[in-house]
Amino acid sequence: MKSVKVFAPATIGNIGPGFDVLGLAIKGIGDIVEAREFHGNDLIIEAVLEADHDISTNPDKNTAGIAAQEALKLLGIKTGVALTITKGMPSGSGLGSSAASAVAGANAVNCLFGNSLSKEKVLEAAMAGEYSVSGGYFADNVAPAIYGGATLTRSLHPLEVTPLGNISDLIIILVMPKVKILTKDSRKILPENVTLSDFVVNLANTASITAAFCKNDYNLLKDNLFDYIIEPTRSTLIPGFPEAKEAALDAGAHGMTISGSGPTVFAITNSQKASVKIESAMVTAFNKKGVECKSLITTSSVDGSGIVKSGIIT
Amino acid sequence: MKSVKVFAPATIGNIGPGFDVLGLAIKGIGDIVEAREFHGNDLIIEAVLEADHDISTNPDKNTAGIAAQEALKLLGIKTGVALTITKGMPSGSGLGSSAASAVAGANAVNCLFGNSLSKEKVLEAAMAGEYSVSGGYFADNVAPAIYGGATLTRSLHPLEVTPLGNISDLIIILVMPKVKILTKDSRKILPENVTLSDFVVNLANTASITAAFCKNDYNLLKDNLFDYIIEPTRSTLIPGFPEAKEAALDAGAHGMTISGSGPTVFAITNSQKASVKIESAMVTAFNKKGVECKSLITTSSVDGSGIVKSGIIT
Repeated sequence: MKSVKVFAPATIGNIGPGFDVLGLAIKGIGDIVEAREFHGNDLIIEAVLEADHDISTNPDKNTAGIAAQEALKLLGIKTGVALTITKGMPSGSGLGSSAASAVAGANAVNCLFGNSLSKEKVLEAAMAGEYSVSGGYFADNVAPAIYGGATLTRSLHPLEVTPLGNISDLIIILVMPKVKILTKDSRKILPENVTLSDFVVNLANTASITAAFCKNDYNLLKDNLFDYIIEPTRSTLIPGFPEAKEAALDAGAHGMTISGSGPTVFAITNSQKASVKIESAMVTAFNKKGVECKSLITTSSVDGSGIVKSGIIT
Repeated sequence: MKSVKVFAPATIGNIGPGFDVLGLAIKGIGDIVEAREFHGNDLIIEAVLEADHDISTNPDKNTAGIAAQEALKLLGIKTGVALTITKGMPSGSGLGSSAASAVAGANAVNCLFGNSLSKEKVLEAAMAGEYSVSGGYFADNVAPAIYGGATLTRSLHPLEVTPLGNISDLIIILVMPKVKILTKDSRKILPENVTLSDFVVNLANTASITAAFCKNDYNLLKDNLFDYIIEPTRSTLIPGFPEAKEAALDAGAHGMTISGSGPTVFAITNSQKASVKIESAMVTAFNKKGVECKSLITTSSVDGSGIVKSGIIT
């Protein structure tokens, strides 16, 4: 029987000031879902591998399972399908873990049956999976995981998403502290109101980041990651954040902020040499505050979700 | 003695949701400043023509005069210069009247002496003129008047402006009600705080408009002019606004909002045929509320401020 392995990348929701609007796919880290034809008419989940905690194998309670079933519906196919999910990142990390599973699940089914769904349809299916676990309906992780590069969610009802493009000079330093934050918890502490002046700063920075990805111009991204609205509240959930941020900027980063709802943080540079210094400075700063962390120097994922070739995810 | 005539276009500040950040230059309406070498070392203003009210001819109290003197400083030139200013739009109209004069003044001096200032330097000079009259330091009219198309003000201190580009399918229907609103008055009624949900809508729409101009894609502009934050308060200063907006949308416009601080409003379409209907519907709606108005169907100004050739401003 046919089978296919599909990955979907980790993603940085918000890209700093672009709360609920911008998202960016990351190279080198993501989930893989293998889909194979199976007897009967049902979708089952055979295994969830390398997960950091129990993830349900009930396909109606699993983000990849829900998304895959939605994709089957959109394809109009009633064949049995078995999924094996390999988690490539911890849940509650701020890297779009549930979105990566949902996208990989939906796209695996799509690729198994001739890749006939448009990216918009894969998005629709994946959003159903994401919705089931994130406590809300957001596309800032799902969209970049599908399209690659940076994406803009213009509207949720109706769902309108635009791929913006990539910045070829962008180097991303990801640091993942061992602290778990669930999106639904991190949303509870958001401010209800923002001042007009903070609004204008976030607006200007978000528009700059949008233009940066549209024009492939690192200079428009540089020094515009600053978020006056969400970071001040959410960073309080991440022990060591102020020290790590200061260390990153002191080491030459052109910005450092929270990835999605955290606790993962990321810094940016366009210098390979600086990236190593920045990574080391951030990890040291977290460690000094007693926070263990993993780290990764990477770039954006250009193509987003796709079939795994030779075990490499891009 | 040498002389040169330079125009600078009218501009739409904010472009709807992009408060203080986005701006757009408009074709077919603008100010003209003629600069000529003059005996002595001083800059004088010989005349202000076609202005709708008294504008000072004291070069230290006139926006074009201040900007032109600043340009002379940046050029390091101490020659006498005489300016003649021809106003192409009423002041307090929401079309960047003071910015057009400031840009035309600075650029006229620049063009008179070999066009050696970069656009960034012309911007710097024009901002000095704009600052003197607008009650604040904003670039959302000055920048597009210089660069043409849409611009993004990324930062005011230091001043960082990015030209975004044009949308070739964009048709703009400008309607100018005979009501005067000064920017400083319209800023007084702005809300101090905005809700997080309104913030996200304006953020998404502003990012969409930014991407629309970067990618020359009308579809990303369409239906994204909606401004939940500033329009609700400022529109109260424009009698007939709700009726004119409804009329524009009913006639097929893909958005209608205030230009800058008003009272000028604009609607958008990509259909020549619809533009005539929209113009007529908006004017009728204002007239029914007893408000006289002028109107113009136009497009964006691609090149911004430049030397007047054969009397045509583009």
